[in-house]
Amino acid sequence: MKITLAIDAMGGDKSPGVIIEGIAIAQRRYPELFCLLYGDENEINPLLKQHPLDLSSIKVVHTDEYIPSEMKPSAAVRGPKGASMRLAIEAVANGEAQAVVSAGNTGAYMALSKLILRPLKGIDRPAIAAPLPTLKGQSLMLDLGANVECTTDNLLQFAMMGEVFAREVMGKKSPSIGLLNVGVEDLKGNSTTKTTYNLLKTSGWVENFYGFVEGNDILHGTVDVIVTDGFTGNISLKTAEGTFKLFKDFFVSQFTKNLWRKICYLFAKSSMRAFKNQFDPRVNNGAPFLGLNGISVKSHGNMDGLGISYAIGVAVDMVRRDVNKLIRDGLEKRQQLHITDDTSCVAIASEPA
Amino acid sequence: MKITLAIDAMGGDKSPGVIIEGIAIAQRRYPELFCLLYGDENEINPLLKQHPLDLSSIKVVHTDEYIPSEMKPSAAVRGPKGASMRLAIEAVANGEAQAVVSAGNTGAYMALSKLILRPLKGIDRPAIAAPLPTLKGQSLMLDLGANVECTTDNLLQFAMMGEVFAREVMGKKSPSIGLLNVGVEDLKGNSTTKTTYNLLKTSGWVENFYGFVEGNDILHGTVDVIVTDGFTGNISLKTAEGTFKLFKDFFVSQFTKNLWRKICYLFAKSSMRAFKNQFDPRVNNGAPFLGLNGISVKSHGNMDGLGISYAIGVAVDMVRRDVNKLIRDGLEKRQQLHITDDTSCVAIASEPA
Repeated sequence: MKITLAIDAMGGDKSPGVIIEGIAIAQRRYPELFCLLYGDENEINPLLKQHPLDLSSIKVVHTDEYIPSEMKPSAAVRGPKGASMRLAIEAVANGEAQAVVSAGNTGAYMALSKLILRPLKGIDRPAIAAPLPTLKGQSLMLDLGANVECTTDNLLQFAMMGEVFAREVMGKKSPSIGLLNVGVEDLKGNSTTKTTYNLLKTSGWVENFYGFVEGNDILHGTVDVIVTDGFTGNISLKTAEGTFKLFKDFFVSQFTKNLWRKICYLFAKSSMRAFKNQFDPRVNNGAPFLGLNGISVKSHGNMDGLGISYAIGVAVDMVRRDVNKLIRDGLEKRQQLHITDDTSCVAIASEPA
Repeated sequence: MKITLAIDAMGGDKSPGVIIEGIAIAQRRYPELFCLLYGDENEINPLLKQHPLDLSSIKVVHTDEYIPSEMKPSAAVRGPKGASMRLAIEAVANGEAQAVVSAGNTGAYMALSKLILRPLKGIDRPAIAAPLPTLKGQSLMLDLGANVECTTDNLLQFAMMGEVFAREVMGKKSPSIGLLNVGVEDLKGNSTTKTTYNLLKTSGWVENFYGFVEGNDILHGTVDVIVTDGFTGNISLKTAEGTFKLFKDFFVSQFTKNLWRKICYLFAKSSMRAFKNQFDPRVNNGAPFLGLNGISVKSHGNMDGLGISYAIGVAVDMVRRDVNKLIRDGLEKRQQLHITDDTSCVAIASEPA
């Protein structure tokens, strides 16, 4: 079965070069891949010759407009109409492509995806999810910033969508779901987390609810899916990224301090490499926007070709596993569950807005 | 000038041993220190002989009750009346001591401190603050979990209290204050952060408002004081701690993998040591509860004597600089500022609860 992806060739720090490099790598891994590549053909065409590409599986759709990285989401929504990112998303809405991938401006990409693809029926707020490297492998965290204020309903939907993604795309058998909180006892947290905890525990919204998890559980890999609001999720993800960077900067400065330290580095190299491999952000690249009526995957802006190929891989897997259909099914099943379960309905109704 | 501290000898994982060791170290640094030591004299007295202590500056107040580490704050508030932690806090309320230090149960310690010392006049919610190691030195972050839901008023008060502490105790000349958010543009964030941002920018609540900061700014040392609600603060602090632990565990496993890796470690040791020194949690130990009518300092539960001595040092410095008076003065000045400044009054009144 052919899988057609719409790819924004102009998004990210090193586009379109790394985008095309990423496609070249992805083509080897996914022979069924066909790419609609949106961007400036004057830049793209010469690059296509530089990589070992199957050109019969690529169609360049020319546009000289694009969304700049600093453009506000509201401005991106108003225009430009011919921007590569917008055209790529529209290709999914029109049925020309089965998923869209961009490494461009996150806020604009989410806003345009929501505008053009619309949320899935029954999903109030789509979320940004991302696979994170952990000591035990990989976990998924959501929301990472699409929704700075969340209700219990939003969090329940995030939990269910995360469960589907972790099972279908990340290959976790019965993914454990954790709700991020300031403590693990059930009386801790703000009113929204407490209500959500009670519902996740009793209502069958997810199969395998672990309970509350704390900040230190995220990278420890305590659970497969970490559910939180976009405010906390964004800040804690960036805190972890900042801590990683601090380590990197510190060791670079230490191991380049003088000749002796440089020699020492040769001995530490294998351990440092092992670390780099285990926590390689490229392998974890590809953040799905979950809850949209169409598959939309975000790549980090500063990835190389290998990283881009992983984001393409997430989109391919989401198409293959028909993730959106499974989310819709899950939602339907849970809505019936709500109708028959009075307790949870009451609890949801009493949740503060 | 003699400084009398009330010290909970029974709090923390390795009490009372490390508490007494900490006092021995602190006595050398602060000759003016007098300690009222609350706990079981049968355990304490033999230990006092094991350390080079000035026993004339220590008075043991016997009690065989204490607050267990897993006791809920509500249970701690109801009893036991003779618990070492409670008696130590009461010593401050009675004027027998100028500050209290405990390494015990954080939730119980905050609840008892609030109950016995009461918040400072004009402070709605006391906060847990903590000095954090950064790439540039040390920053202060608050709130770290005392208040999981915060209003704009709470955050403004945290900002002002953090400014006083950073200036007086941490020796920052004109401390820069950052408000933790999901982005740095002024239209980002939830309604509380946006209102707080506008007030901090325009109302003169703090001298040197930097603006919004993100998760990755915390350990980078972008600002001297990071202000946030206790939900986000607690989770992002624990995320950073978890990331540190992940690094440590990973490198320990790498450098003990086989004999060759153990030899390699000898070469990497100096860099690893430098890291350990720069980010030594002991040097950063001592989290003040800010906004109470009395000085209350929390030590991490798993510190050694050196760590405990730093927490004692924070209490001594807070007494020396009369931090609570400066907070009261700051508050008064700002209340006058509010009366004369209509805009900020209106904005505060319209802030969602």
